[in-house]
Amino acid sequence: MKPVTVGILGLGTVGGGTVTVLSRNAEEISRRAGRDISITHAAAKAYDKDQIMGLDDIEISDDAFQLVENPDIDIIVELIGGDSPAKELVLKAIENGKHVVTANKALIAKHGNEIFAAASKKGVMVAFEAAVAGGIPIIKALREGLAANRIEWVAGIINGTGNFILTEMRDKGRDFADVLSEAQALGYAEADPTFDVEGIDAAHKLAIIASLAFGIPLQFDKAYTEGISKIEKQDVEYAASFGYNIKHLGITKKTDKGIELRVHPTLIPKERLIANVDGVMNAVLVHGDAVGDTLYYGAGAGAEPTASAVVADIIDVARTLTTDPNNRIPHLAFQLSELANTPILDIDAIESAYYLRLTVDDKTGVMAEITQILSDNKISIKAMQQAKHQKGEPAPLIFMTHQAKEKNMNKAISAIAFLDAITGNIQCLRVEHL
Amino acid sequence: MKPVTVGILGLGTVGGGTVTVLSRNAEEISRRAGRDISITHAAAKAYDKDQIMGLDDIEISDDAFQLVENPDIDIIVELIGGDSPAKELVLKAIENGKHVVTANKALIAKHGNEIFAAASKKGVMVAFEAAVAGGIPIIKALREGLAANRIEWVAGIINGTGNFILTEMRDKGRDFADVLSEAQALGYAEADPTFDVEGIDAAHKLAIIASLAFGIPLQFDKAYTEGISKIEKQDVEYAASFGYNIKHLGITKKTDKGIELRVHPTLIPKERLIANVDGVMNAVLVHGDAVGDTLYYGAGAGAEPTASAVVADIIDVARTLTTDPNNRIPHLAFQLSELANTPILDIDAIESAYYLRLTVDDKTGVMAEITQILSDNKISIKAMQQAKHQKGEPAPLIFMTHQAKEKNMNKAISAIAFLDAITGNIQCLRVEHL
Repeated sequence: MKPVTVGILGLGTVGGGTVTVLSRNAEEISRRAGRDISITHAAAKAYDKDQIMGLDDIEISDDAFQLVENPDIDIIVELIGGDSPAKELVLKAIENGKHVVTANKALIAKHGNEIFAAASKKGVMVAFEAAVAGGIPIIKALREGLAANRIEWVAGIINGTGNFILTEMRDKGRDFADVLSEAQALGYAEADPTFDVEGIDAAHKLAIIASLAFGIPLQFDKAYTEGISKIEKQDVEYAASFGYNIKHLGITKKTDKGIELRVHPTLIPKERLIANVDGVMNAVLVHGDAVGDTLYYGAGAGAEPTASAVVADIIDVARTLTTDPNNRIPHLAFQLSELANTPILDIDAIESAYYLRLTVDDKTGVMAEITQILSDNKISIKAMQQAKHQKGEPAPLIFMTHQAKEKNMNKAISAIAFLDAITGNIQCLRVEHL
Repeated sequence: MKPVTVGILGLGTVGGGTVTVLSRNAEEISRRAGRDISITHAAAKAYDKDQIMGLDDIEISDDAFQLVENPDIDIIVELIGGDSPAKELVLKAIENGKHVVTANKALIAKHGNEIFAAASKKGVMVAFEAAVAGGIPIIKALREGLAANRIEWVAGIINGTGNFILTEMRDKGRDFADVLSEAQALGYAEADPTFDVEGIDAAHKLAIIASLAFGIPLQFDKAYTEGISKIEKQDVEYAASFGYNIKHLGITKKTDKGIELRVHPTLIPKERLIANVDGVMNAVLVHGDAVGDTLYYGAGAGAEPTASAVVADIIDVARTLTTDPNNRIPHLAFQLSELANTPILDIDAIESAYYLRLTVDDKTGVMAEITQILSDNKISIKAMQQAKHQKGEPAPLIFMTHQAKEKNMNKAISAIAFLDAITGNIQCLRVEHL
């Protein structure tokens, strides 16, 4: 069989990794795929020659638009990232009948519906395994491996930077700001860390996961995001004392009322496997009605782990070049015509257990007032603890609640904030027992 | 598209689960697959009507050989288990041009080479995701998701019964025999537990994993197996005191000299994720050169988890009905013509770190003799501990070694056994830092 020809857009970290992996493992990959995969062209403004293996046989230009017009290229691999010109390039490649592989989570989360519609019309594939959790083949698992199941919920640690920060805070008792500076110095976190620590990057990935799990269109704009910058050292300690680790989770659940789609810091019982996924590693826990819990763990970023997913997609696409376009695995796991309009729930409509930290003046009667407010709002207390404090100083009070309505919890917090005895901020975090 | 017709051989636990899952999730599955999947026929000697959902539209006979001759059936699902008549039925189905899905690990591990050769000749698929680690889509991950990688090693907890026993021994300080009796009473373990606790079942699965990872023919007969019946309560305790959990691992590694293929109890550092996979759960840790470590976790057995994998295979096969037989994913991940004859190493040829437990009369000079023997055999000691014992009674001595040659360790043990001061048995377990 003749080699499949590939054109790569972007020779940055992931682009370089992709060229290196395809070159280093060419023989092994060809023994698997039954044909050679050949990167014939690449487009890049700048790249680091010394970091990339196998560049010699590649024709490199700085004009990406020329590449997507090149009739000699079978598969376009988009590794530029961001919205534009990635979107225009991908749509043009599709228009020209080319298959596309991309690692671009923002692109898929925000423009996937449009891109997949165009691809389906043209009968080409758009593969995006690398867009979620880097090297972990989670998209393949959701779309094919678990295809027998009604997926009930998915919870994932899908941002390595955030997980690194939370792990350091827990293991070394450090502050958020302190660890963030170090992560920036090490190159784990961007100069503007908002994307990672405020949950936007995770929400991109979660929106993709939700579509694959529940057969709904991509709806990134409806995701609720809450960052980890609000987590204080003391919260990590108090959570630990109740037997929990704090993780920044992306959670999507199907309920009778609709689909929950939310990224926020979450307390998870320490004995859960996912609570022990530390450092920059990612993990996705999927609950299916038949299979029960399955978990997928690995590196969520980095040159070669991401390249591992990109190259797997190239092999998959190479195989499907000879298949009937009407009988392929659908982009979003479900047939395009079968996507459901199940509503995405507002965060106010969810239910959760909660961790509530108050700081109160140590007066008689204040506890009675607080518990009365919680009770009035149908929130029942599972555990309570007064943390150590200097005599005469305000006392930190931590409540762990049973399952309650988010709406009621918000009402309770507003009422508690009015109490005279409350000083300082009120911290409220969700708890998932998974 | 017209429905795909399926004939099921066997309506036991997994067969019943498969019918139930396909029936309960029919709508969701059809939204994914783009066509209906219809079980039209089944063959079973006996089955439990009340436990299976969706039997009404199925024509049930007790003649499996009639089913594999039926021209109206597209896919034969073999869920009888064991060697015979499963092998004859599968080969006959292939001969008749039918695709096959099976959950039969013994069949694939022992007769896979013959079966895949026949299937390739006929241009049909034989899918076996359920044969390894039940509901975990590990075969798909190895074969497709990680196809860009040179796999360096795989280590798995791939027998739930054994993992349940070891978990109970650790958590409750119980004896092997005691937990085994309970597991038998609960139905987790067979009346003859040899298959599970001596590692034969795990070796079936490991042989399949090794073929997929390294592109070699199935060679179950060359797997080394060592069971967990030799593990004593005190070993679990001493391992814990050094920071390790004991797990029954299947390990396959590619080295310069060949491929290691071994199932044995193994000490793993407690902080490793796989060391925390407890109870009847399974997990497989895969190390690829590009992706690094990835781990796959879930239920390794049970009606519906196994059915989850069987039904995913049926959907996959249904999709490939319209593909070019020469451009499909190969059964063993690598093209049949590209399988390598890399040798499987004898257990004597491996290297490992070791846990060595001796019981010695508390005399001066004995420690010097033991350490001299270890040193003579190029085994260096990482840690040593004398366990608590009654004064005057023999003392348990535990050594943790650095990486050493298995051959040298065996020589050292033979020499140590000759020492006058040694009483009782010598326990030697392998340690993997993964």
